[in-house]
Amino acid sequence: MKLASLKSGGRDGTPVVVSRDLSRMALATSVVPTLRDAIENWGQVAPELQTLSAQLEAGKLDSLPYDPTTLASPLPRAFQWADGSAYLSHMRLVRKARGVEMPANSQTDPMLYQGGSDAFLGPVDPIPCVDTDWGLDFEGEIAVITDDVPMGCSTEQAKSHIKLILLCNDISLRHVMRPELIKGFGFFQSKPASAFSPICVTPDELGKAWTGGRVNLPLLTTYNGEDYGRVHAGKDLTFEFPDLIAHAARTRDLAAGTIIGSGTVSNEDHDVVGSNCLAEKRMIETIRDGNAATRFMQPGDTIRFEMLGEDGVSIFGAIDQTVVAG
Amino acid sequence: MKLASLKSGGRDGTPVVVSRDLSRMALATSVVPTLRDAIENWGQVAPELQTLSAQLEAGKLDSLPYDPTTLASPLPRAFQWADGSAYLSHMRLVRKARGVEMPANSQTDPMLYQGGSDAFLGPVDPIPCVDTDWGLDFEGEIAVITDDVPMGCSTEQAKSHIKLILLCNDISLRHVMRPELIKGFGFFQSKPASAFSPICVTPDELGKAWTGGRVNLPLLTTYNGEDYGRVHAGKDLTFEFPDLIAHAARTRDLAAGTIIGSGTVSNEDHDVVGSNCLAEKRMIETIRDGNAATRFMQPGDTIRFEMLGEDGVSIFGAIDQTVVAG
Repeated sequence: MKLASLKSGGRDGTPVVVSRDLSRMALATSVVPTLRDAIENWGQVAPELQTLSAQLEAGKLDSLPYDPTTLASPLPRAFQWADGSAYLSHMRLVRKARGVEMPANSQTDPMLYQGGSDAFLGPVDPIPCVDTDWGLDFEGEIAVITDDVPMGCSTEQAKSHIKLILLCNDISLRHVMRPELIKGFGFFQSKPASAFSPICVTPDELGKAWTGGRVNLPLLTTYNGEDYGRVHAGKDLTFEFPDLIAHAARTRDLAAGTIIGSGTVSNEDHDVVGSNCLAEKRMIETIRDGNAATRFMQPGDTIRFEMLGEDGVSIFGAIDQTVVAG
Repeated sequence: MKLASLKSGGRDGTPVVVSRDLSRMALATSVVPTLRDAIENWGQVAPELQTLSAQLEAGKLDSLPYDPTTLASPLPRAFQWADGSAYLSHMRLVRKARGVEMPANSQTDPMLYQGGSDAFLGPVDPIPCVDTDWGLDFEGEIAVITDDVPMGCSTEQAKSHIKLILLCNDISLRHVMRPELIKGFGFFQSKPASAFSPICVTPDELGKAWTGGRVNLPLLTTYNGEDYGRVHAGKDLTFEFPDLIAHAARTRDLAAGTIIGSGTVSNEDHDVVGSNCLAEKRMIETIRDGNAATRFMQPGDTIRFEMLGEDGVSIFGAIDQTVVAG
């Protein structure tokens, strides 16, 4: 099933089920007040939402036209957003750009940072650009939402805790990042509010494209109306989602509603498939030409992320954002 | 007023007002379902909670005996926990022990990391020790809870966003931390769930000890039943809470219910006043003797943090935790 949250209602939004073809959506408040409550009581609530979803598909529910402008991120806020860096080709390029070595154990020890999760941007919300000198960049990612994960959970056990899948635009401030990371406490100012796809889906919606650990489909990235990337999310990732979850749960429980991100989806053959952030392209230019011709985002720039199923239908709806001054 | 959350109820607990002398507490569910809801609607809810608090003091409310074993952290979970390192004497000791200079901008650019906030330990909950080789340590801190803080908020404006004050035990895994920080993404596995004091208070409860930016009182720290620290929270801090809030809000809004921590309370005259973590004591031993005699926490060890008002009454109640294997 496909789930989303209307912006209206409280800080956690109002839950809706969305039709597979993204034409209609129906209120799910008869089942649960918010999607946050749903994931916190998933065992009980999911079957009821499935029933509602089937009724929507069968045309047996009052419904609204699908309209992403009315939608928040599926979880408009979360108690935990932990973002990885599972595609090492991305890490290799951005570290080269920052003049930082790859960690010695990068092939065996996942990178994961604690992200801000108190208020996400909506999927088609403007991205505020306060200062163009901050180096505003997008990052196209896959993310999963878990139920309660106990401390010490194994990679194998972690698979069953993945309940929902979605896309993420992990917005980054590249020129704020370099001095911030040198201080040694990780990202804070350099990672303002992220945005997620309008829709999150249960793994079955992906069919064979979901392996239990990764999404075997390309992420379609359009920057300022032009193809920017068709990077395959199932290729060149060193750590699958269960690896990231087990890593996150090594020393503590993860509460239901935890969102785990893949990091920027990146392939080794970036000259063929493109990229999912500007920093990668700038580094490729720097390596090739000695300097980066591509500038960071400015007011008016647009970024769109989408993923199509084998039937050509958008799985998660599109993240589609415009940068605005302010 | 003094506020707390009973563990019973949902993941956000059940709100109570607590008497100034910490003898009684009364349900606040007639006003608001949870303390999280209270801080998210503070302007409307605070006066009603004040009225309830006055009724409790006047003996006009049904009440329970104060019992910290029934209490969760005041916010049992939060959408944001951002922890600083405002006492540079702590950082200076760390770097001195490692033979490393202080960063050039340490006096002007606050250190702040994004902490895990999906589930905090209760104030007298056991601290799980899965592996004694992880180097389990306590950190005694002051923390504040804000209402909604807009991006770009100034230090001066930040003062008015501090609505509640409390203590924190920011539990750290020292031997997990060093390899984790080298990776460059900040803390994740090395910072398991923190615990907070049983009670959070409005600033007026501190009287003259609250300056608008700092708490001018010593933090009383008892480790395994013995005095370990009487470190003054108003001395030797380079960044006050409004500085930390303004730093956190530079590139994004902070949602109501954000908890901002001071970092380990530390004074320059640590040989007189003691410390608020084991790592500092180990550093002092290392500088003096060439090696650290003090071991990290093991099952059975106990740690207690408390702060007394000028009248000798515990302001926040005591964080009082025992390490258990598990």
